[in-house]
Amino acid sequence: MALPVAASPRPLDPSLLPSWREGAARARLLSFIEAVSREGSPDYVPPAERIAVFDNDGTLWGEQPMYVQLAFALERARRLVAERPELAASPVVAAAAAGDLKAVMAHGSQGVLELVALTHGGLSTDAFTALVREWIHSACHPTLKRPYTALTYAPMRELLDLLRARGFQTWIVSGGGKDFVRVVSEDLYGIPAERVVGSTVRSEYVVQNGVPTILRRPEVAFIDDGAGKPVGIHDAIGRRPIAAFGNSDGDLAMLEWTTAGPGTRLGMLLHHDDGKREFAHDRQTLFGRLDRALDEAPKRGWTVVSMRNDWSSIYPANPPIKPVACPPGG
Amino acid sequence: MALPVAASPRPLDPSLLPSWREGAARARLLSFIEAVSREGSPDYVPPAERIAVFDNDGTLWGEQPMYVQLAFALERARRLVAERPELAASPVVAAAAAGDLKAVMAHGSQGVLELVALTHGGLSTDAFTALVREWIHSACHPTLKRPYTALTYAPMRELLDLLRARGFQTWIVSGGGKDFVRVVSEDLYGIPAERVVGSTVRSEYVVQNGVPTILRRPEVAFIDDGAGKPVGIHDAIGRRPIAAFGNSDGDLAMLEWTTAGPGTRLGMLLHHDDGKREFAHDRQTLFGRLDRALDEAPKRGWTVVSMRNDWSSIYPANPPIKPVACPPGG
Repeated sequence: MALPVAASPRPLDPSLLPSWREGAARARLLSFIEAVSREGSPDYVPPAERIAVFDNDGTLWGEQPMYVQLAFALERARRLVAERPELAASPVVAAAAAGDLKAVMAHGSQGVLELVALTHGGLSTDAFTALVREWIHSACHPTLKRPYTALTYAPMRELLDLLRARGFQTWIVSGGGKDFVRVVSEDLYGIPAERVVGSTVRSEYVVQNGVPTILRRPEVAFIDDGAGKPVGIHDAIGRRPIAAFGNSDGDLAMLEWTTAGPGTRLGMLLHHDDGKREFAHDRQTLFGRLDRALDEAPKRGWTVVSMRNDWSSIYPANPPIKPVACPPGG
Repeated sequence: MALPVAASPRPLDPSLLPSWREGAARARLLSFIEAVSREGSPDYVPPAERIAVFDNDGTLWGEQPMYVQLAFALERARRLVAERPELAASPVVAAAAAGDLKAVMAHGSQGVLELVALTHGGLSTDAFTALVREWIHSACHPTLKRPYTALTYAPMRELLDLLRARGFQTWIVSGGGKDFVRVVSEDLYGIPAERVVGSTVRSEYVVQNGVPTILRRPEVAFIDDGAGKPVGIHDAIGRRPIAAFGNSDGDLAMLEWTTAGPGTRLGMLLHHDDGKREFAHDRQTLFGRLDRALDEAPKRGWTVVSMRNDWSSIYPANPPIKPVACPPGG
């Protein structure tokens, strides 16, 4: 029997999660949070075990027409090829430098790994962070014409804040790069660097000209996607989460691992079904395919959130990072 | 300029760190903590950056006559060989099963890796945790005749508690196994599983007979020692610590990385120079060699703590885990 917390949290306010419309998804969230955090509840979970994990791309912010990080990789490939034209000897690098997404993706996962190794490796962690920071604070979404940092999902930020207010640890478990996501996780989601799990390149500690440095090697070390997500979670957290939020088949193993534990659990999938306000895609899409997990959800008791029906707003009215002006052109 | 915290911490009480004798080491600790945590101090560091890292073996508990985890490995090898005698075909496994430490170490680091792979891999994370828990709650130190869980260093626990009271995050950064240390980190040190960095075996997520499982493969994946420590720190924390505590050359890179950052920094090495109350060893020892780091300490401004002179007591009067009775014999 778990010990109750010292002070009983206040009852959940009906005005909570204001960007979530009344409906099954909102009700499920509120009843789960209440059940595990209210002192004396039969489903009470002590704070140390109250761990919620969130996919990033497609769950906390968008992933159409491509992952934000891939847009960074294309831009970095363009700059690297401008400095060192011989790099364009690689077809996938040449395609990236030309901004030709379709040609990049035609090289498959091996091509993407090669591109990531080049554009994310071969520099220090400090230099990489500086590059990402500079880029993310100025880059704009190609069709929405707004900075990426203004395009996080307001309902999810409300959910993160509510979970933390109710004693949860909130973690990002991203298929994207850990050090990439860390640059914005605190500002965009209130999640500090040490609570970001993600893919990594091989790193090495060296003293260069007397300066201690962590070098990122041009080699992917760990892919935090699919069956990699439970492994990444165990490695970083060492406990099984009680709630998991995702949007694609890459999150299936994470939801499965989370909801297979004892006691009350929550698995939730965000369904991108709002072609008017965001993007509509599921079984057939280059990024964020939701196919098997969509079939599994009802069998496993996972809640499917409809962006179209369950969210009254998509993007934050006041983005946490002051937006830059984006060019109106394509 | 960092923002001050909301409420000013109380001035440091002279009764703090009661197991630390008056002297340069205690004074350095108190002045550092005061400098970085006091609102308005020129060396003030905001809480999110107030990160302290601690080696485990030889820093938070003993490592003589061998690492605690190695004693676990010998016992597990003994049991495995009893079940599957064919495993004794490996000389290092046979030596371990016979409890012959010298013969084990004669096989060098390759032999130890082979032993770790066998005794720490080939089972689920849940099964491994259960094995370690059962063992650590009953195993006794071979010469001190007390359970290992009663042999943590009381002055270090006082320091951990004080740091946390002053808004620090405290992390373990161990050359030992992450999942091994996690079993006791909360009880012994007040450090939760997610703040333990350590060595790992390769893990894999599988669904076995319908049960989602994380399997530990018999293969060492990452060695969190020496130059591995800054890499492990960056991977887990994503920020550079401002204070690092170690006791051997395996901690040199961690202290170097930590103290090379800007602003006020603290590097501290525990010197095992108390052969009467604990063990005396430094440059010549099988475990926890302190040689190069001992020479570097004065040049780099790292404080060397003398167990003999700086600590009024070594072990906790009331161990956090109720001690079992240990046999008086050898």
